[in-house]
Amino acid sequence: MPKRTVFFVSDQTGVTAETMGHSLLTQFDGLEFRAVTLPFIATLEKAEDARARIDAVAAAEGLPPIVFSTLVKDDLRDAVKAGRGVFLDFFEAFLAPLEAALDSKSSHATGRAHGMADLAGYTARINATNFALANDDGVHTRDYDRADVVLVGVSRSGKTPTCLYMALHYGINAANYPLTEDDLEGGRLPAVLAQHQAKLYGLTIRPDRLQQIRHERRPDSKYASAQQVAFEVRSAEALFARYGIPFLDTTDCSIEELGSRIMHKTGIERRLRP
Amino acid sequence: MPKRTVFFVSDQTGVTAETMGHSLLTQFDGLEFRAVTLPFIATLEKAEDARARIDAVAAAEGLPPIVFSTLVKDDLRDAVKAGRGVFLDFFEAFLAPLEAALDSKSSHATGRAHGMADLAGYTARINATNFALANDDGVHTRDYDRADVVLVGVSRSGKTPTCLYMALHYGINAANYPLTEDDLEGGRLPAVLAQHQAKLYGLTIRPDRLQQIRHERRPDSKYASAQQVAFEVRSAEALFARYGIPFLDTTDCSIEELGSRIMHKTGIERRLRP
Repeated sequence: MPKRTVFFVSDQTGVTAETMGHSLLTQFDGLEFRAVTLPFIATLEKAEDARARIDAVAAAEGLPPIVFSTLVKDDLRDAVKAGRGVFLDFFEAFLAPLEAALDSKSSHATGRAHGMADLAGYTARINATNFALANDDGVHTRDYDRADVVLVGVSRSGKTPTCLYMALHYGINAANYPLTEDDLEGGRLPAVLAQHQAKLYGLTIRPDRLQQIRHERRPDSKYASAQQVAFEVRSAEALFARYGIPFLDTTDCSIEELGSRIMHKTGIERRLRP
Repeated sequence: MPKRTVFFVSDQTGVTAETMGHSLLTQFDGLEFRAVTLPFIATLEKAEDARARIDAVAAAEGLPPIVFSTLVKDDLRDAVKAGRGVFLDFFEAFLAPLEAALDSKSSHATGRAHGMADLAGYTARINATNFALANDDGVHTRDYDRADVVLVGVSRSGKTPTCLYMALHYGINAANYPLTEDDLEGGRLPAVLAQHQAKLYGLTIRPDRLQQIRHERRPDSKYASAQQVAFEVRSAEALFARYGIPFLDTTDCSIEELGSRIMHKTGIERRLRP
């Protein structure tokens, strides 16, 4: 079965169109798609070019491509819509009911969703990113006073990317501490963590998955052995249970989902608007 | 004018609902909103709770709140929709036309958009994140062979968060190199960059903004002085011009926009699906 072509067309980065389209397409099991993003379609000329590309695919494949669009301006939207794609525009669908509900006209201005970062938001993001970098991997622990959350888990359980995601997406201070063999054998929280127990959040992972991940990093090492991995995961989970530290299994979770669940369960307030 | 309450309701993380809602709300200048995210509404009981919260706000404020929803399952969606909010559901709007276009029934399964990360995607993301961390701030340069892009700019021009964003969002290897005073005074690319000239992408920033950012970091330092900042920005831009390095001004750009523009202009292929 040939892959159906899908376009994401936007006057901006295309991130919203991609997010929207991807959410919808994952509802169709068994179909395969070829994705083409056309960002920064901000002039009529570019909109005509986009239309021509869509029409060329329609002609070549004999089927209209799917077009997810976030075009705010009517003239640009009309130009792309006139093509031979199945046109699903996000603003077209929702702007009219929203105008009615808010009793207000929309500005139909492009470039708002992700552009024009305000200084406060930018600063929050940068500060949070720097915090995550400085407090990665338990290297520094003196900043835990300023942490919103400290992720705890064994090596390669997903702490670093989750911290960075939470910094970039929510602007919060997320540190992480890898449980060492000493911590795990002793079965006690190290003093530096015990002082900040309310901020701790555990990450765990299924041993077979952890083994796969570690094996890719250091093939056939003790670090990646079934025995070592099983010991570490079991000991970490016992530690979480002993100290009442909430934890999540990262095995089948995306980083977005981990970040969102931790925010939700801890009640930490985001410092960046969505 | 009181803030209008906006709910983001999702059976998953709420990231898609937030992205969608935020894009739309930024089209309404002058209105202010209070945002409440209700993630993981995955049972009928939770959907009824969400509805009760929406109704309570409607009663308290005398105006129906706006509800952006990404609820895949019909029964959950119906439960929330029965409340007193202005209900805008993303799957309701698009799933039917998409089913027709694809001549296929959607699975109406939750938990696809961001959940269930596949191992290949997870590995790409982790590897890219580790690459960005290891190659941050010019500390290591020996990995530039494996870089997809090397961001170049003066201190605090936005390199680090942009690299991390590109790693997490696109799974690509993004390194960054801060131009030093020596590089800038000499007006020449350091040898380590000259070898990889095709991978370089410059970031610049408006001097007044850079001064603000640096002042927050080191108040009243030479580093944050008008003279120093003006010299560095001018010299960096001259270097970009001299070597034909493409560059972007980060002053009014969000990190998402920077990442997207760099991907678009360089043609680097993403290693993660949207």
